[in-house]
Amino acid sequence: MPEEVENTEQAEERPEVVELEALRAENEGLIAENEELIDTLQRVKAEFDNYRKRAARDQEGLVARAGERIVKELLPVLDDLERALEAAHAHEEAKLEEGVELVHRQLEQILEREGLSPVATDGMFDPHVHEALLTQPSAAEEGSVIEVLQKGYRFGDRVLRPARVVVAGPREGSASNGDEG
Amino acid sequence: MPEEVENTEQAEERPEVVELEALRAENEGLIAENEELIDTLQRVKAEFDNYRKRAARDQEGLVARAGERIVKELLPVLDDLERALEAAHAHEEAKLEEGVELVHRQLEQILEREGLSPVATDGMFDPHVHEALLTQPSAAEEGSVIEVLQKGYRFGDRVLRPARVVVAGPREGSASNGDEG
Repeated sequence: MPEEVENTEQAEERPEVVELEALRAENEGLIAENEELIDTLQRVKAEFDNYRKRAARDQEGLVARAGERIVKELLPVLDDLERALEAAHAHEEAKLEEGVELVHRQLEQILEREGLSPVATDGMFDPHVHEALLTQPSAAEEGSVIEVLQKGYRFGDRVLRPARVVVAGPREGSASNGDEG
Repeated sequence: MPEEVENTEQAEERPEVVELEALRAENEGLIAENEELIDTLQRVKAEFDNYRKRAARDQEGLVARAGERIVKELLPVLDDLERALEAAHAHEEAKLEEGVELVHRQLEQILEREGLSPVATDGMFDPHVHEALLTQPSAAEEGSVIEVLQKGYRFGDRVLRPARVVVAGPREGSASNGDEG
């Protein structure tokens, strides 16, 4: 009996028993931490998944709404065009001309609000925004734009369509009429 | 010396030592698992973050592109309107009328491609797509649309603008002319 007591006391003081207790506690902590990490990971993954699905839906919606917004803005233009057509069919020429001017102004304003702006053509030929369809001998400075065949437009900072222009050639008699730019 | 040997042998067989070994191994496994989970979590979080940033950029781009596409389609309409205006200023009435008809057709086609469709008005009044501005005594069936004051349009399956119409009242003399729908 005294032997047993001594054995027990020795066991509790033995370093491996102390380490055993510490390891058990540490393992419990690690298991709890792991479970928490797995929970967090599953939650983040689920959030990510939902976000992905929502983003795809949102994108479709955004594109549809962007289209709808512009289309809605264009309805008055369509209305006024129809009114102009009625004036044309009734041979009300003044009303027709007025109507066309109104429609033109409206459409220009809508497109401007969307980000459209005309390309400047009152100066030298600029290959970034102009397309030279012809070079013609001219009294104007060589290389300057002398005629606009089709207006050019930017959308935001990009050139949506270059202006198609005629460029002044050399002033001398040796005209290079008809050259493609 | 023989005592020591015996002690060592006893130690190796003691259950707490066996458990100690198992716990140490388990501990190492748990720590490794833990590190892996933290790595995975950080990776998923970083992916999520990047996805979020990219999605925001993509959305801006999508909306801008949707606008740009429609604006680009409308450039020929603007060109033809300008040509019609030139005809108007030159008093070329036939050319002006032709031009307006062309512009109207173009704009209608573009908007149709975008998803616009006119609301039908050749039948009974339908509060889902019509707005009754007037009820007038009429030879037509009571409740039928007898005049369209402004065309209505759907965009996809939504009513973008109801058609503003005049509705036939009762055929009898007790006309309810002027009622708001």
